[in-house]
Amino acid sequence: MNLEEKTKHTTSIYEGKIIDLDVVDVELPDGRAGKREVVRHPGAVAIIAVTEEEKLVLVKQYRKPLGKEIYEIPAGKKEAGEEPKLTASRELAEETGYVANEMELLFSTYTSPGFADELIELYEAKGLSQGERSLDEDEFVEVIEVSLAEAEGLIKEGLIHDAKTVLAVQHLRLQTFR
Amino acid sequence: MNLEEKTKHTTSIYEGKIIDLDVVDVELPDGRAGKREVVRHPGAVAIIAVTEEEKLVLVKQYRKPLGKEIYEIPAGKKEAGEEPKLTASRELAEETGYVANEMELLFSTYTSPGFADELIELYEAKGLSQGERSLDEDEFVEVIEVSLAEAEGLIKEGLIHDAKTVLAVQHLRLQTFR
Repeated sequence: MNLEEKTKHTTSIYEGKIIDLDVVDVELPDGRAGKREVVRHPGAVAIIAVTEEEKLVLVKQYRKPLGKEIYEIPAGKKEAGEEPKLTASRELAEETGYVANEMELLFSTYTSPGFADELIELYEAKGLSQGERSLDEDEFVEVIEVSLAEAEGLIKEGLIHDAKTVLAVQHLRLQTFR
Repeated sequence: MNLEEKTKHTTSIYEGKIIDLDVVDVELPDGRAGKREVVRHPGAVAIIAVTEEEKLVLVKQYRKPLGKEIYEIPAGKKEAGEEPKLTASRELAEETGYVANEMELLFSTYTSPGFADELIELYEAKGLSQGERSLDEDEFVEVIEVSLAEAEGLIKEGLIHDAKTVLAVQHLRLQTFR
């Protein structure tokens, strides 16, 4: 069965700093008309950084959509003309001060395929050394370092509460069995 | 350090079928002004359903934001006035025909905390039996059942490509070690 939904017309509702919003008139697989709301996002990179002391590097950030602070792995949106691997290295350094020798792409996932095209690439930072932080002017971020067991505790408490960070913690726990 | 971003003014850009979009003028922690784009979403439930034959139930769906078909665990948005557990049972039955004896909440994660408030609650369906499918009029979904190893293969191929389904597969793999 062909499940494709053909675009009939796209209405641009909003073009913003980080996201755009389109409403797309589609032809459904049975020929009827439908409407899809689509948030366009440049995509993001997120970084699993584990220190020599086997601590996972997290950043504490206030997230306006949630109205609260959560602990996340370092991340940032992709920049046009910059290789994602470089974006990952740059964001890690800017947010945490850690410089990585190497960035390895682990996997990528769409965060909300029902309404957004945001794809997050998950990187593993290798060979960390200390550098200097330099945050964007509207970024306010605290750095903490936790053991894997502590990270799992933060998930239970709801302080780690976002998909990419839970994915990262699960990934690290799976590594301990391999 | 208090990282809160106080709302100064909210502009409603769009109110849609599934999402709304607001632009929020905020006061940053250092007192300066900032802007945040916030997608409002009612939240969603997603269901890990494993059959008696130890197969994970997936649905194949065309996702307009991605422009392609992917395999996901069954999911649906929360409905006002309906208990999320019931939404999970209902969505599982509608999309796959499976009826669950019991739904257990495993954990919840925000999908895109940088720009959206969508929270997904992940449920485990217990005691599956066969019922009848009844899709929404704009839903076109195929059901497949795969082993855990096959699901991991689908991740490698990019056919499972969304965060909630990778979370589910990693969760199931972690269970095999416990």
